[in-house]
Amino acid sequence: MRNLQVVLRRRPVGALEERDFLVRSGEVPVPRDGEVLVRTLMVSIDPAMRGWVLDVPNYLPPVGVGEPMRSFGIGRVEESHLAGYSRGDLVVGMTGWQEWAALRGEDIQRRVDPDIAPMSTALGVLGITGLTAYVGMVEIAQPAARSTVLVSSAAGAVGSLAGQLAAARGARVVGIAGTDEKCRRCVETYGFDAAINYRATADLTAAIRQACPDGVDTYFDSVGGNMLDAALATMNVGGRVVICGTISLPAGGTAVGPRIERSILVNRLRVEGFLATDHLARVGEITEGLAGMIESGSIRHAEELVDGLPEAPAALIRQLKGENTGKVIVVVP
Amino acid sequence: MRNLQVVLRRRPVGALEERDFLVRSGEVPVPRDGEVLVRTLMVSIDPAMRGWVLDVPNYLPPVGVGEPMRSFGIGRVEESHLAGYSRGDLVVGMTGWQEWAALRGEDIQRRVDPDIAPMSTALGVLGITGLTAYVGMVEIAQPAARSTVLVSSAAGAVGSLAGQLAAARGARVVGIAGTDEKCRRCVETYGFDAAINYRATADLTAAIRQACPDGVDTYFDSVGGNMLDAALATMNVGGRVVICGTISLPAGGTAVGPRIERSILVNRLRVEGFLATDHLARVGEITEGLAGMIESGSIRHAEELVDGLPEAPAALIRQLKGENTGKVIVVVP
Repeated sequence: MRNLQVVLRRRPVGALEERDFLVRSGEVPVPRDGEVLVRTLMVSIDPAMRGWVLDVPNYLPPVGVGEPMRSFGIGRVEESHLAGYSRGDLVVGMTGWQEWAALRGEDIQRRVDPDIAPMSTALGVLGITGLTAYVGMVEIAQPAARSTVLVSSAAGAVGSLAGQLAAARGARVVGIAGTDEKCRRCVETYGFDAAINYRATADLTAAIRQACPDGVDTYFDSVGGNMLDAALATMNVGGRVVICGTISLPAGGTAVGPRIERSILVNRLRVEGFLATDHLARVGEITEGLAGMIESGSIRHAEELVDGLPEAPAALIRQLKGENTGKVIVVVP
Repeated sequence: MRNLQVVLRRRPVGALEERDFLVRSGEVPVPRDGEVLVRTLMVSIDPAMRGWVLDVPNYLPPVGVGEPMRSFGIGRVEESHLAGYSRGDLVVGMTGWQEWAALRGEDIQRRVDPDIAPMSTALGVLGITGLTAYVGMVEIAQPAARSTVLVSSAAGAVGSLAGQLAAARGARVVGIAGTDEKCRRCVETYGFDAAINYRATADLTAAIRQACPDGVDTYFDSVGGNMLDAALATMNVGGRVVICGTISLPAGGTAVGPRIERSILVNRLRVEGFLATDHLARVGEITEGLAGMIESGSIRHAEELVDGLPEAPAALIRQLKGENTGKVIVVVP
């Protein structure tokens, strides 16, 4: 029996390329005591993966060259040597980009019940994506009713959800996205009050000011760099900036830009970074509330399903370029 | 009757110079309804003044050219047209650098009782300095017992107090200062666990790591720039950075440096700016607690008294160069 894997072929330099990865046929692992053997059904594509493949200080050790790419995934237990799990159970965990994985208890996030919601949502809106948006917007930003919330990557899986969670608290929500089509989706599908196509504006700060005439109280940032600078110039006194990602920064290198501490001081800002992976233990509790909001129609989400593990690298690269629509998930045939 | 004033002669370019100010004899103001006329006894010298004289966006409008320099001061009421104040009352307020000032109710912070503590402390440890250290360290940073707290400008009025307040909470406190003498004072007078002379080290990050073998949990920053960057490299996951000042940044201009949002993200930092002036209404309540700590000897403070209003510009410039010792106060003869 083969184990189709997508492994890191070499340490990427600059932007990720498909040839940084290699599709190969590996061994099916033999589960040890305390492990389950799972057949991977779906894997998640996440912007954070760009950081995981670099050999620079990060919150997780880098993926080793020659190892299967690290990834959240959904697996069906085929063989269990772990108390509490039986053949046929569906679990979310760190499967990696491979057909078969041996998971220890700590690699498993939780069980999935496909009768409650489509299985794929356990990787998206009812999984790490939902957790990220909820922790960042509801727990850290805590926007007030009638305050102004600005969200970058607003048409993306996390941004679109974060914006809807802010709107559910009564905030006025403005998104930033990279195409007119994405901006339309922010307003029409996700109910944002306005959206700015940053590629179609020469002066992003002016465009934000126009869309946010009362200034910005909360900025939910997944981008960093120039976009963060443009937003900082529009923040109200006492505002909060949530750093959810820094996708615009060159991977691995040191980026240079205007210093921001004076702006943090003068406007008495709170700038806070967070990682959803710190909160994995609470994913069940948090997504239970989100499931109710989805069922009632008060939040919406989009998924893009990609067919076949060998397509995972291309899907990741498209996502990093902002060419995806909502949550990207690869279905392992 | 003359009113000796030190006025802003011109908008400074680059570092402050004495000739940016002018000593002149002005009119004694005639207090209107709702005002008191005070004779200024002492004025405060504060690093924030550097920002107040620039015509760039700040938290207060810039001091106008030809106007007396804005300043906290202690005045004795000579004539009152303001309910609740009588001749002879001592008040802390925005006197400016002048012998006589007309103050409205909103310009007055509070009364001073010289029987409780020396009058000068109302401008320092029991005034804006104490308020700054307390709000920044106790209310915003909230360092835990046995955590590591790093303080810049550690021998200064605010830094030395902030460090002692952290130590009183059971934290391990390390200071950064600019001379060996200041470092000695941090350890011997203020009870810091260690102090680093940043001018005597080629690699400040390495020096901080050596002095803080468990990493830094809280960084109380009055400096910004390279010192902030060096500290950021040593922060523990979940750490807090309090932005109290940015004295190293070029006044008015835009400084450039390494981007910090990735570091905020990866280490899940909270970086928060604050201004003591937002909390002036609570100065009495907060400094009451500090007065007790001073009386019991659990915190210490230093003052440098300068003689004569005309010396105020030179005193400010010396302070901005770090040549002062503790709180600088000008005694108006």
